[in-house]
Amino acid sequence: MYLTFDVGTTSVKTALFDREGRPRAKSIRGYVLATPQADWVEADPEAYWAAVLSGFRETLQAAGVNPGEVRSICGSSQGETIVFLDARERPVRPAIVWLDNRARAQVEELKARLDPEEFYRHTGCTDIEPTWSLLKVLWVKAHEPESFARTSKILLLEDYIVYRLTGRSCSTPTLLHSSGFLDIQTRRYWDKTAGWAGVTGLLPEIVEVGSVAGRLKPELADELGLSRDTVVVKGAMDQTLSSIGAGNLAAGIVTETTGTAMAIGVTADSVEPILANHLPFQPHALSGKFLILPYAQTSAIIYKWFRDQFAQEEMRQAENPERAYEALNALAAGAPAGCDGLVLLPFFAGAYTPENDMYARGVWYGLTLKHGRAHFARGIQEGVGFMLRRILGLILEAGIPIREVRSMGGAARSDLWLQIKSDICDLPMVRMQEEETTGLGGALLAAVAVGDFPNLAEAARGMVRLGRRFQPEARHRKVYDRQYALYGRLYRALKPVFREFSSQAGGA
Amino acid sequence: MYLTFDVGTTSVKTALFDREGRPRAKSIRGYVLATPQADWVEADPEAYWAAVLSGFRETLQAAGVNPGEVRSICGSSQGETIVFLDARERPVRPAIVWLDNRARAQVEELKARLDPEEFYRHTGCTDIEPTWSLLKVLWVKAHEPESFARTSKILLLEDYIVYRLTGRSCSTPTLLHSSGFLDIQTRRYWDKTAGWAGVTGLLPEIVEVGSVAGRLKPELADELGLSRDTVVVKGAMDQTLSSIGAGNLAAGIVTETTGTAMAIGVTADSVEPILANHLPFQPHALSGKFLILPYAQTSAIIYKWFRDQFAQEEMRQAENPERAYEALNALAAGAPAGCDGLVLLPFFAGAYTPENDMYARGVWYGLTLKHGRAHFARGIQEGVGFMLRRILGLILEAGIPIREVRSMGGAARSDLWLQIKSDICDLPMVRMQEEETTGLGGALLAAVAVGDFPNLAEAARGMVRLGRRFQPEARHRKVYDRQYALYGRLYRALKPVFREFSSQAGGA
Repeated sequence: MYLTFDVGTTSVKTALFDREGRPRAKSIRGYVLATPQADWVEADPEAYWAAVLSGFRETLQAAGVNPGEVRSICGSSQGETIVFLDARERPVRPAIVWLDNRARAQVEELKARLDPEEFYRHTGCTDIEPTWSLLKVLWVKAHEPESFARTSKILLLEDYIVYRLTGRSCSTPTLLHSSGFLDIQTRRYWDKTAGWAGVTGLLPEIVEVGSVAGRLKPELADELGLSRDTVVVKGAMDQTLSSIGAGNLAAGIVTETTGTAMAIGVTADSVEPILANHLPFQPHALSGKFLILPYAQTSAIIYKWFRDQFAQEEMRQAENPERAYEALNALAAGAPAGCDGLVLLPFFAGAYTPENDMYARGVWYGLTLKHGRAHFARGIQEGVGFMLRRILGLILEAGIPIREVRSMGGAARSDLWLQIKSDICDLPMVRMQEEETTGLGGALLAAVAVGDFPNLAEAARGMVRLGRRFQPEARHRKVYDRQYALYGRLYRALKPVFREFSSQAGGA
Repeated sequence: MYLTFDVGTTSVKTALFDREGRPRAKSIRGYVLATPQADWVEADPEAYWAAVLSGFRETLQAAGVNPGEVRSICGSSQGETIVFLDARERPVRPAIVWLDNRARAQVEELKARLDPEEFYRHTGCTDIEPTWSLLKVLWVKAHEPESFARTSKILLLEDYIVYRLTGRSCSTPTLLHSSGFLDIQTRRYWDKTAGWAGVTGLLPEIVEVGSVAGRLKPELADELGLSRDTVVVKGAMDQTLSSIGAGNLAAGIVTETTGTAMAIGVTADSVEPILANHLPFQPHALSGKFLILPYAQTSAIIYKWFRDQFAQEEMRQAENPERAYEALNALAAGAPAGCDGLVLLPFFAGAYTPENDMYARGVWYGLTLKHGRAHFARGIQEGVGFMLRRILGLILEAGIPIREVRSMGGAARSDLWLQIKSDICDLPMVRMQEEETTGLGGALLAAVAVGDFPNLAEAARGMVRLGRRFQPEARHRKVYDRQYALYGRLYRALKPVFREFSSQAGGA
């Protein structure tokens, strides 16, 4: 059996999976983020670690299995949350969370030094964001020189947990790819960034995803009741493990998570079409392959927003907030495909792939008095569907085939939403039987690392199960094609307005 | 005392006013419209007449006054609803209601024959609409030649009621101005339209607003218990009487009604600046003056739509739907001025003055996850405020001064909405004490016609009372200026999209 952890933004999920990929127990432990200033988001590294440990304890207890059966541990974390440790391995300052945007000035500094195209080819990132570790480190160096001087290790979050579990500090190309430190061509730290920032000596050794980091520290093994032979395996960023846990290991398979954000994973065999089409990507967990990672900041969170703001009746009548979605889905099903001309631009926090437009905002277009709440509910599902189609269209244009889309995240619970996505994208959509694909991805890596399967493909065959499949129906093709054309036209028409009237550009 | 009627789209309002302009009684009588086909809206002329009569009876009874004290009767109607009578004065076919859009082909026919600028100068109308009587008559002539052949009188709705009351068929330049039949320069039927259509002989005599049409038919006087000396006075279109009832009789005064639509009335002393700025206008009830009549199809009805669709909780908790608006206003007051960047284009059924864009649709722009229901409620009030500012801006650009805006319609009940309009437009907004300004306008005309006042200005001094006054506050000027600039920019950016993706242009 395999113990997994997934250190998310506000909670850590731990789980125990068996060799068939079935979860024996799961637990969730929350922690609190601090926002000492606008744009700043911080957390106590010890709080992350304590939550993982206590999650492990609860999971092992709930599973009711002999802890000695646990062969290995593997996990994931959010990308870009960064921990600074001193020589005695204590935090120098709070961790800076991925959401933190304090390093805007450093973005400009870096953009002035590096050609964006060169940057893209060496990092796989289509834009330079203040959330990157490199920029955050530059900020600390500039504003807290005494903290920086005391720093002896800089670790990303999964690296930090593995370090606490084993005492070994190491990172992987997938977790590092969006840090700005790594040259993905050489899979080594990049002189033009890490070297220039003077941090190469503070960064951990680079190893491969799925490699053994080491044995669990004996005192931890004893405390948790685990065998002292328990192996800790290097995981990856949450999105990477989620792709693996959905069996996204060969070209033709696409995974998409419609949760808070929309994250898409596409396995590609060669880097050339990716570079030629300027798609965001990272090294794949399968050596020699690449994982294209298009991204949108807001997707199903708009549905949650709509529920919280505009579905008070459903919330009041539902047993719990989660059940209110069912009522909302039933409502949405009552509106016609194409929403009688209503269309949503779902850019509630800027547009990412492919627009890279931080100024973009949400827009409801085409309102008449005959539009009702049902149109809005369905319109959110369709708008997210158009966003997915736009991104998958880029993949297809790059000559990368798509056979099916495996769907995860809260939106994958809705039959209607999956059918809408399938119809809009003209592709089969498949739900996963196990919702916790991130944990399951860790279990696959953990299983392969201890030799329970010869490779990830075999592990996926044994541990990953598909759920219901939704085939595209032709009857709404015409209306969706028209609405999709409108969606694209609308963004092009509004792009200059977004910029002119952005709050950054002055005014409100 | 003066008996008034206002024949609206779905009901007739009758009222009895005293010499101080106070209503002694009011009543409302509904009727049902028929929509035998999409775009067709019809009604039985007898139903209009029966509703007026029964409204008169109820009003007189409720007032508890001696009916002999009623000196005169005057009323209004919606424009453009047209009645066809045969030689025996029976309806040849159902009345075609102003909302009816069957005559689209006739619009094209007319546009091919007449230069739009020539058209505007002779009618005061900035566009040719299928709702005009001229187009409807052409439709009947083409599609129901046998009905047309039997027609001996064509009457607009107020004309028809006065005809039933007195036996005299006559119309006025204000009611006729948007029929397409009248040349407002000569105040006679226009050869290029009425002559060309071959209907001049079927149209009524033209008299002035406020002139005496005749005495009430003796049998009606007896039936209603009124004196046989009761005089029937020619009224006008509802918007015209509403302006009069708000005392809009001199340059500098603007009236605006934010109800279903937004209708604005501006008194102007000369026609030149109106023509130079291509503003829609009609002959004023005060001879020699002009009434500029900008118009928007949807205003407070969007607030009603929002209440019905998105305020179920408020509706459930309110004693009646009308009270739910108070809860909605309180909610709206909780959002900041400028709605954190959210802006509404309130074109839920096309944009009229000045855009004349039948393809325009409603748009919510600038959404983020922090926007809540309060922002939407306030956003509707602000969006309507921006529409008002746009129109008043055109008036000011034409060199016509605005001293204050007198506000009517359901939206005038909201302090918040009036303050928002005042702040956005940087003009004082004034509520009227008597909400039923259309009826009161009829009472003013009725009073002057029987010599109770020497002229309308004196009648207004005696009968029209202002309510609370809202002065513009400077503190939100900057944010409203920015949002207003965004409102204009947004429409310009979307104008081509509205046209390309209109449902008329094919598709959904």
